[in-house]
Amino acid sequence: MSLMNSLSTSMISSSSSAFLAATSFNSRTHIVSVPVKGINVFKCVATPQEQRTAYKTKVSRNENIAKLQAGYLFPEVARRRAAHLLKYPNAQVISLGIGDTTEPIPDVITSAMAKRSHALSTLEGYSGYGAEQGEKALRAALNSVFYSDFGIEEDDLFVSDGAKCDISRLQVVFGSNVTMAVQDPSYPAYVDSSVIMGQTGQFQKDVEKYANIEYMRCTPENGFFPDLSTVARTDIIFFCSPNNPSGAAATREQLTRLVQFARENGSIIVYDSAYAMYMSEDNPRSIFEIPGAKEVAIETASFSKYAGFTGVRLGWTVVPKQLLFSDGFPVAKDFNRIVCTCFNGASNIAQAGGLACLSPEGLEAMQEVIGFYKENTKIIVETFNSLGFKVYGGKNAPYVWVHFPGRNSWDVFSEILEKTHIVTTPGTGFGPGGEGFIRVSAFGHRENVLEACRRFKQLYN
Amino acid sequence: MSLMNSLSTSMISSSSSAFLAATSFNSRTHIVSVPVKGINVFKCVATPQEQRTAYKTKVSRNENIAKLQAGYLFPEVARRRAAHLLKYPNAQVISLGIGDTTEPIPDVITSAMAKRSHALSTLEGYSGYGAEQGEKALRAALNSVFYSDFGIEEDDLFVSDGAKCDISRLQVVFGSNVTMAVQDPSYPAYVDSSVIMGQTGQFQKDVEKYANIEYMRCTPENGFFPDLSTVARTDIIFFCSPNNPSGAAATREQLTRLVQFARENGSIIVYDSAYAMYMSEDNPRSIFEIPGAKEVAIETASFSKYAGFTGVRLGWTVVPKQLLFSDGFPVAKDFNRIVCTCFNGASNIAQAGGLACLSPEGLEAMQEVIGFYKENTKIIVETFNSLGFKVYGGKNAPYVWVHFPGRNSWDVFSEILEKTHIVTTPGTGFGPGGEGFIRVSAFGHRENVLEACRRFKQLYN
Repeated sequence: MSLMNSLSTSMISSSSSAFLAATSFNSRTHIVSVPVKGINVFKCVATPQEQRTAYKTKVSRNENIAKLQAGYLFPEVARRRAAHLLKYPNAQVISLGIGDTTEPIPDVITSAMAKRSHALSTLEGYSGYGAEQGEKALRAALNSVFYSDFGIEEDDLFVSDGAKCDISRLQVVFGSNVTMAVQDPSYPAYVDSSVIMGQTGQFQKDVEKYANIEYMRCTPENGFFPDLSTVARTDIIFFCSPNNPSGAAATREQLTRLVQFARENGSIIVYDSAYAMYMSEDNPRSIFEIPGAKEVAIETASFSKYAGFTGVRLGWTVVPKQLLFSDGFPVAKDFNRIVCTCFNGASNIAQAGGLACLSPEGLEAMQEVIGFYKENTKIIVETFNSLGFKVYGGKNAPYVWVHFPGRNSWDVFSEILEKTHIVTTPGTGFGPGGEGFIRVSAFGHRENVLEACRRFKQLYN
Repeated sequence: MSLMNSLSTSMISSSSSAFLAATSFNSRTHIVSVPVKGINVFKCVATPQEQRTAYKTKVSRNENIAKLQAGYLFPEVARRRAAHLLKYPNAQVISLGIGDTTEPIPDVITSAMAKRSHALSTLEGYSGYGAEQGEKALRAALNSVFYSDFGIEEDDLFVSDGAKCDISRLQVVFGSNVTMAVQDPSYPAYVDSSVIMGQTGQFQKDVEKYANIEYMRCTPENGFFPDLSTVARTDIIFFCSPNNPSGAAATREQLTRLVQFARENGSIIVYDSAYAMYMSEDNPRSIFEIPGAKEVAIETASFSKYAGFTGVRLGWTVVPKQLLFSDGFPVAKDFNRIVCTCFNGASNIAQAGGLACLSPEGLEAMQEVIGFYKENTKIIVETFNSLGFKVYGGKNAPYVWVHFPGRNSWDVFSEILEKTHIVTTPGTGFGPGGEGFIRVSAFGHRENVLEACRRFKQLYN
C-alpha cells in the first residue's frame, strides 16, 4: 500500500549521486547577505516567437495579461518538478510544494457523492441546473456550522467551485478602477487576478512589485501582521488568515484593528479563511466574529483542505447584505449577478459531498483528516527546528515557513529539489516579502513526510 | 413514475380558471404592428435603496456592471415562474423555458462517476488538484471523438466546468479594449459578459442595444445568417451554431464565408457549438471543419445538453495553437494563464463522467438522450405548425423559435404563462432581434411536452 514501499533500491542509489554532491552550494551561506534577485529565474511563459509566415489576427493582446511576469506560481513549480524528473527519471520525488491534499476522502463523504451520482440516473433523483448560488440545503448547513452566531444569513452565502475561482469572480465585480492591498507574502492569486483585471501598473523589477498595489509587509519582526499605520488606504484589502504561506493566524485584537482600519478608510476586506479549521490557537475562525465586519468584509472559504476536495472542487463565499458600495448599492447583488452570468453553480455531486461534510459524521471525519496533516506539520517543524532553522507557521496552518536569511528563495528551492528530490515552494512566489523563505507543505503521506525530513536532515545537518 | 400522474384533478381545475380567460389579449393581434418596447418589463435588479443610516464603504460600484439593464435572462425567467407560483400555488407549471435537461443521465455515465467518487476514498484512487486544463485522458478522448480529423491536437483542448464559464474566461483573456459582434438574437451570456468586461458603451434604450457592440441581425429573411457585407469589423465575433435561440444551423458554405470574413478582418471567432450533436442536416459540427478556421477561431462546447450534465458541470474549449494575437503571441497561452490563475479545473468526478460519455457505450447512450429530446422538438414544431404559426429551428437544435409577428415577446411570454402555466423564454431576452418571437425548449418529460402542446392548442386554436 505504501508508496514508499515501491521505492526500489536502485531508485535510491540512482538518485543518491545527486545527494549532497559537492557544488558551489554551501548550506552555511544562509548567513551571508547576497543581493536578492529572484524574479528572473521565474519564467514559464515563452516570449512571442517570430512567426514570419504564420497568419496573425488583428486583435491586440490584452495588455494587462502581458504585464504578468511569469506563469502562475504552482504550474511553474509543477513544470520544474517535471523537468527534474526528466533529468532524474528514477528519482523518488516527494512533493511538499503545491499544497495538494494526499489523503483519501472519508467514506461518509464519497458515499454521499456516489449516491448522488447514481440518483442522477433516476427520474426522481435527476436534477439539472441548480441555483447558481448553490443548493439551499448546503447554504443553510454552511451558515449553521460556520456563521450562525455572527448574524450572517443563509442568503449571504454563495457556494462555488473553490476559493480561487471566487477570488477571480470578486475581481470581476470590483473591476479595473479599484486599488488593492495584499499581505506580502500571500497566496499569489490575489495579485495575479488584480493584474489581469487591470487594477495595477507594470511590474517594477527593482522592487519586484506591481505598481499600484499596496504590499503590506508581514515579517517575523511584526509578527506577520502589517503595521497598519504605514499602509496606504486602498479600496480592497486581501487578507488571508491563517496565512498562506507564512502560516500566521491573526489574533482577535489584530483583526479588530484590521476591521477598524477598513471602516475608517471605507475599504472592503476580502478575507480568505481557507485554513481556518487548522487553527490550534484561540483566534477567530471567521472575520465575522469581529463586530462591525459585516459592513466591510467578504469571506471566502473552501472544502479543499478540510475534506481533500482539491480535485472535487467546492468552496463558498460570504457577502453580507450589509456590505455596500459608496452609492449604497449592495455588493452582494453585483456578486450575485456575476455568479449568475459567469458561472452556473458548483457540480451537484460535489455539493452532495459538501452537505455530507457538514453532517455530524462528516465534521468528525474532516477533523480527523485535518488532525493527520497537523501531525505532519509538527514533524516538519521539529525537523527544521532541530537543524537550527528559524521556523514560522505550522501551529495554525498546514504550512511551515522556513527562514533561509539572505538567500534567494528560488535558489534554495532548486538546491532542495536537486539534492533531495523534494519539491517545496520558494517564498518569492508569494511576493517579495517571501524572499529568504521556503514554504514546506504538510500535505503528504506520513511515510513521505518522514522520508522528506530524513532527507532535509541529510542536507542541512 | 410519471410526474403528470401526480397532477391532481384539483390542480387542473384550480388553474383552469386562468385558462383562456377573456382579457385584452387577442391572439390575432400578432398581425398588427405595434411599437416594440420590451426592455422595461425586464427588471430584476433592485435600484439602490435609500440607506440613510447604513454604513457605506468608499468603494465605487463597478460602472460596467451598473450598465447591465436587468438580471441575467434565465434567473429573471425563474423569478417570474416563482412569482406565478405564488399567484397560482396549485398551478401545474410546465417549464419549457430555461433549456434545462430533464431526463436521467444514462447509467453507464453515472456509474463511472459513482466509481470515481468511491475511489477517492482509497489511497490508490485518491487524486487532488488535477491539471487546470483537464485530465489528459479526457482531453485525448475529446480530441479523438470530435476533432482529430481537423488537425486539432490534444493540447489545444481545455476541459472546463461549462461553456458559459469558459465564455467569461475568454472575455477576461480579451480584456476591455476589444470590439465585439454577436448574432442577434443569441445566447445572452455573450453580450452580458462583454458589458461586464467594459467592452461596450451604455445601453441605448431607443434601439435596445449596447453601444459599441455589433449586432448581426439574424431573421427569417436572411435565413438566420447575417449579411456580412453590412457587418462592421470587430475584434471578436461570437457565433453560436446551431443557434440558441433560433435553432438555425449554419451551412458549410455560410461558415466558409464567416471564416473568410474573419480572416479578412483579422477577427477572432468564438464559435459556440454546444448543440452540435443535435444536428439533423449535413452541416459542419465544428468550425474547425472549415479550412483556415484554426488561425481565426476558438470553439466552446459542453456535455450539458448531450448527457444531461447541466447540474454536473462539464464542458470544453478548443484554442488552437495557430491562433495568434496581432503581435504573434498565441491566444492559447493567455487562455492557459487565465485557466491556471482563475480556475482550478473541473471536478474530477465530473471528468470521470465525461470520459464515460466518450466511450462507445456512452456515445450511444448520449445519442439516445439526444434522440428523445429531438422527438420532443418534433412534437412542438408540429403543434405550432398546426396552429398556423411560422416556426423556425427544431431541426438542428432542441429549440423551437415561434413567430408572433408584431407582438412584444415579454407580453407573449406573460400571456402563455398566465393562461397555460407554461414557462417559455421571450425572444427579446436574446437581443432586440428576438422581438416577436418566443423560444420553446424541447427539454422536458414526454408527458409534460404533450400536455404543454395540448395547452398551446387550447390557447391558440
